[in-house]
Amino acid sequence: MNVLELPTPALVIDAEVLAHNLATMAAARPGASLRPHVKAHKCTALAAAQFAHGHRSFTCATPREVLGMAAAGLGADLLLANEVLDRDRLRAIAAAQDDARITIAIDSPETVAAAATAGIREVLVDVNVGLPRCGCRPDNAGRIADLARSAGMHVRGVMGYEGHLMALDDPAEQQARVADSVDRLLLAHAAVGGDVVSAGGTGTFHLHDRVTEVQAGSYALMDTHYGRFGHPFEQAAHVYGTVVSATPKYAVADVGLKCMGMDHGNPSLETLDGNGADVWFLSDEHVTFVPHTGVAGVGDRVRLPPAHIDPTMAMHEVAWVASGHEVIDRWPIDLRNW
Amino acid sequence: MNVLELPTPALVIDAEVLAHNLATMAAARPGASLRPHVKAHKCTALAAAQFAHGHRSFTCATPREVLGMAAAGLGADLLLANEVLDRDRLRAIAAAQDDARITIAIDSPETVAAAATAGIREVLVDVNVGLPRCGCRPDNAGRIADLARSAGMHVRGVMGYEGHLMALDDPAEQQARVADSVDRLLLAHAAVGGDVVSAGGTGTFHLHDRVTEVQAGSYALMDTHYGRFGHPFEQAAHVYGTVVSATPKYAVADVGLKCMGMDHGNPSLETLDGNGADVWFLSDEHVTFVPHTGVAGVGDRVRLPPAHIDPTMAMHEVAWVASGHEVIDRWPIDLRNW
Repeated sequence: MNVLELPTPALVIDAEVLAHNLATMAAARPGASLRPHVKAHKCTALAAAQFAHGHRSFTCATPREVLGMAAAGLGADLLLANEVLDRDRLRAIAAAQDDARITIAIDSPETVAAAATAGIREVLVDVNVGLPRCGCRPDNAGRIADLARSAGMHVRGVMGYEGHLMALDDPAEQQARVADSVDRLLLAHAAVGGDVVSAGGTGTFHLHDRVTEVQAGSYALMDTHYGRFGHPFEQAAHVYGTVVSATPKYAVADVGLKCMGMDHGNPSLETLDGNGADVWFLSDEHVTFVPHTGVAGVGDRVRLPPAHIDPTMAMHEVAWVASGHEVIDRWPIDLRNW
Repeated sequence: MNVLELPTPALVIDAEVLAHNLATMAAARPGASLRPHVKAHKCTALAAAQFAHGHRSFTCATPREVLGMAAAGLGADLLLANEVLDRDRLRAIAAAQDDARITIAIDSPETVAAAATAGIREVLVDVNVGLPRCGCRPDNAGRIADLARSAGMHVRGVMGYEGHLMALDDPAEQQARVADSVDRLLLAHAAVGGDVVSAGGTGTFHLHDRVTEVQAGSYALMDTHYGRFGHPFEQAAHVYGTVVSATPKYAVADVGLKCMGMDHGNPSLETLDGNGADVWFLSDEHVTFVPHTGVAGVGDRVRLPPAHIDPTMAMHEVAWVASGHEVIDRWPIDLRNW
């Protein structure tokens, strides 16, 4: 099938661009030095492609992602880089430990107790390195690790996500502040011990020489938010749409805010002659736009690079994989929800 | 089960508030004078509750919504208030016409041809009444209707959605501009004919005395965007979350931007002692917030009224229905995607 014959809205992954992104990252951070984050795509088929590029360990954000990765045979070393208190979900994860190696983030006495009670075997101390989100204070990490060990769990090390430093415009400032965040993480690691020091993301993958692994996810498919920082990854995912209504002043395509992550603002839009467009607004099922050149007619196809790839993927049931204009595969987005 | 024992994030509908909203609207616009829009909830169980309040006709935004409503036995009079060119989806809708009455919006020669070719029997002319989205010019509506009749289809009338007037702060200005939009719609109707003049939404339901029906959807569950305009509907849906990490300065709950529509900005957040909070930011799976009073501890529950209900519903697999704190039903959100 031609990509222009897909029912729209259709999330399309360019196979060659994806392969370029995966190979580029695998060259920069081979094997276990990258722990790809599946939250950015929620797709076990895409995770299998990352596996084929040499990465055996993965990062997850939700229990559903952990269980889905384990069920797909990609459970050699799964890190749930998130705090979970839910008893039933922790038990389900514990039950999967016979078939998969699973490590859970902890950052408080409550999360230690929940993991231990559920029968989780391995944990990692989540450390706050400056982002106001999860993670204990560096000077409290040793105490959390001791609690976990007292409860019978193996502590593999530390993680700290410097999410507030992913999108800084000044490279020198970014490098200096990432170094500070790693200082905080290593301070915690000195008290915690273990083999794992995990940090980073697509925006800082190139700045980490003092950690054992980086947790990047967006690099595989990219989005316009990360696209402006000059990283060596290209836009691999677009949402294709069809112009369903047109006037001499503007046109309307069937790509609305129910299929595009909107927290980073409006997506961009390209007509298929390669030109850009001014996006006026998105509503539930529509985007209103004005092509920079020419006019868009009813039935024309357009494509929108997402502003934020993670929530965009989470809104779709399936990703179509295309080589040029030829659709070569259909990947269920099978790790959605919690 | 107690609502505070649900796995989180959990979309919870307050049964009493929903019943209040449905009864209030049914009193204001009884029976066929309201054509509830299912895009706002994507849930056939909720549509069945609207049916029980006397509404037999429904508005849909996607083919999936039309087919799902027909399959659920709610197909007495379905309007697809959207332009569709997709041949396979139009054929699927045409095949459902033996069991359901289905009317499709058209606004161009291309959409007329697509509907006629697929075997659609009934259409309605979508008219632009000021919102720069779908709809033909009022002075072109008669020509579109003639095209449809020439192609053998029954033209039921006109619709025009004044989406740009839903959220005006000045009631007098809103009333005057809605009157202008209805003037445009009636101009089109004079050329088109038919029994149906369909317009409006939750923000203007009270301003329509010259149309046959209003297409409101958000009124059933509401959101904080519509909540500030003084309509007689209350917030019936919240996303419940669990505090998974806490510091003396802020707390973090497991309600992120993958379960909250973000196009209207951040949602609000309430602690369960009834107090509000400052929401700092949402990331994929988390919200960072500061309660207005007291502190939030790990394990505490919070709830977030959505800023925009439509995309929020589209992100969830299920809605839990609660009476007070007691969970009394589980409604699949079964009309998602396209």
